[in-house]
Amino acid sequence: MSVRARGRAVVLLSGGLDSATTLALARDDGFECYALSVGYGQRHIAELDAAARVASALGAREHRVMRVDLAGIGGSALTDPRIAVPEAPTRGIPVTYVPARNTIMLALALAWTEVLGARDIFTGVNFVDFSGYPDCRPEFIEAFERLAARATKASTEGGGACRIHAPLIEWTKAQIIREGVRLGLDYGMTVSCYQADEQGRACGRCDACRIRRAGFQSAGIADPTRYQPR
Amino acid sequence: MSVRARGRAVVLLSGGLDSATTLALARDDGFECYALSVGYGQRHIAELDAAARVASALGAREHRVMRVDLAGIGGSALTDPRIAVPEAPTRGIPVTYVPARNTIMLALALAWTEVLGARDIFTGVNFVDFSGYPDCRPEFIEAFERLAARATKASTEGGGACRIHAPLIEWTKAQIIREGVRLGLDYGMTVSCYQADEQGRACGRCDACRIRRAGFQSAGIADPTRYQPR
Repeated sequence: MSVRARGRAVVLLSGGLDSATTLALARDDGFECYALSVGYGQRHIAELDAAARVASALGAREHRVMRVDLAGIGGSALTDPRIAVPEAPTRGIPVTYVPARNTIMLALALAWTEVLGARDIFTGVNFVDFSGYPDCRPEFIEAFERLAARATKASTEGGGACRIHAPLIEWTKAQIIREGVRLGLDYGMTVSCYQADEQGRACGRCDACRIRRAGFQSAGIADPTRYQPR
Repeated sequence: MSVRARGRAVVLLSGGLDSATTLALARDDGFECYALSVGYGQRHIAELDAAARVASALGAREHRVMRVDLAGIGGSALTDPRIAVPEAPTRGIPVTYVPARNTIMLALALAWTEVLGARDIFTGVNFVDFSGYPDCRPEFIEAFERLAARATKASTEGGGACRIHAPLIEWTKAQIIREGVRLGLDYGMTVSCYQADEQGRACGRCDACRIRRAGFQSAGIADPTRYQPR
């Protein structure tokens, strides 16, 4: 399919497994992809290096890292070094939840979409094998799409509303992995771990690592993740 | 009324006339106010100094400046120095519109609100004497409130939804100014101009200056704005 066939899309790309698969899907669907990563003060900064590798490997037209300081307000194990990343399952929404993170990321994507004259945003949020974050639910994505339809210049000038694509939202992790492998994606490039080391090697114990590892097992596909030496 | 009576609120504070009035109203309403300014690469950086003065004068509990680089994506006269600020009225949405600015600012406010355990956000958006920006309309604010009700930890754990207060949204500029003066606000501290100089002196010619000046005239109140020498 021609790369130009469906126009431009902004794809949120964290550097993890889900967003890399989303980029592969958007590209396969014929979109010209503009990959957006957000540096929000996350402790697992290796994911931004991973995002750059994935964007390049998957032929993104441009890869942009926007920075916003959420570490200053804290409130999450991912942005406040005084809060430990849990290494066993916890009840309720875990402390790795980052307040309003997906709202902020989609808002930044919306801004870039408007500047690019695009109408499509892709996000890799997932509602099945996930950590219970509120801003990964279908009703959240639908509410953001309704907001976007009232937020932009195009929405008042009749240019058409912006579509929020969340293709993985109802897939299991195993389904996601199988689809990525089918599209030729090398998951060895991606970093999901919340406390990856500087080389991007995973801890194997955090929520993100556990869900990812179980996904490869369930898919019956060899796990290419590089783990830290025990 | 006791400052503690209504709990904490995050108040978006640009340093202009509307947001300063909004902070005065929130405080008068009994909220403990946390003022949030966003440095997004705007050319009129003097407004951030004005925000600090206003936050201090109105007894905000804390004033935080969050930075996010919208200048990198451009698309507005306020963030791209190659696009001139218009000095006469234009048709349609003017080039001073910043893509998705209010969506981003409300998203950042939502994050801080969650960390503070607050349930109230104030914004000074206005739909009457305004520049036609899509993200100043009542339907935009309502859509954001619906989004917030699905975006946060509290929204899934039964902690109650977040209210988005836009008290000025249907007021004329003259009404806003009269109310601020009644509350003792010194508008000489505020900077509305899109191209204020380093001392915060206004150009007197841009859209923001024209609307502001007309507001003081209509209110029959002496304009305390400091203008640049012609």
